[in-house]
Amino acid sequence: MNGPANTSEPDDAESPHPATGLDDMVHQRVRLGILTIAHEARRVEFGYLRGQLELTAGNLSQHLTVLETAGLVEVEKGYAGRRGRTWITLTAAGNTALAEEIGRLKQLIARVDAAETGESG
Amino acid sequence: MNGPANTSEPDDAESPHPATGLDDMVHQRVRLGILTIAHEARRVEFGYLRGQLELTAGNLSQHLTVLETAGLVEVEKGYAGRRGRTWITLTAAGNTALAEEIGRLKQLIARVDAAETGESG
Repeated sequence: MNGPANTSEPDDAESPHPATGLDDMVHQRVRLGILTIAHEARRVEFGYLRGQLELTAGNLSQHLTVLETAGLVEVEKGYAGRRGRTWITLTAAGNTALAEEIGRLKQLIARVDAAETGESG
Repeated sequence: MNGPANTSEPDDAESPHPATGLDDMVHQRVRLGILTIAHEARRVEFGYLRGQLELTAGNLSQHLTVLETAGLVEVEKGYAGRRGRTWITLTAAGNTALAEEIGRLKQLIARVDAAETGESG
């Protein structure tokens, strides 16, 4: 969506900076990737996630455990034919947390873009 | 062991997911906040940054050292009257790194928004 940059208020010292509202649980690079892909696919297979995010199985597992413990994803083991498979699903709480993160990022980007416009104008 | 072949999954498995391009140096929540504010203000005072990002002096100092070591900000000590002040300036490399981060975030947000539209339609 290309629109003209909103004129936000970069010097508004009263309202907290959007970066203060970012939650590391969701903002962390790998976890943001997991939530984004799970949001797109609704139900995503472990190996697919691993390939998309270019992670080792161990690294992906660690982040999934963090997200599962926080209630943001559900992890279930099952079978595709005789092969074990692990499926990841975004929970309602995960969906909400992702929406909040995206909202903050949009605020932050709007401020960066507004400063950019100010420079060249 | 061997990575499994791609199973049938949606979308473009060829282009890497935008989350893989995020750089923790810039993406990390506090550092993203520092770079964003330095970008707006060109030259920003330590105490102002601290207030805007709601950080302790120690935490802010640690992140500034990381950014300075990476060449993304310049930190200079000076005086305002007789009081010591520390000023932070975004470098050209910092400006480029922030622009790349913002570009990746826009890609990521576009994918989330596209999935959202698909759901409700």
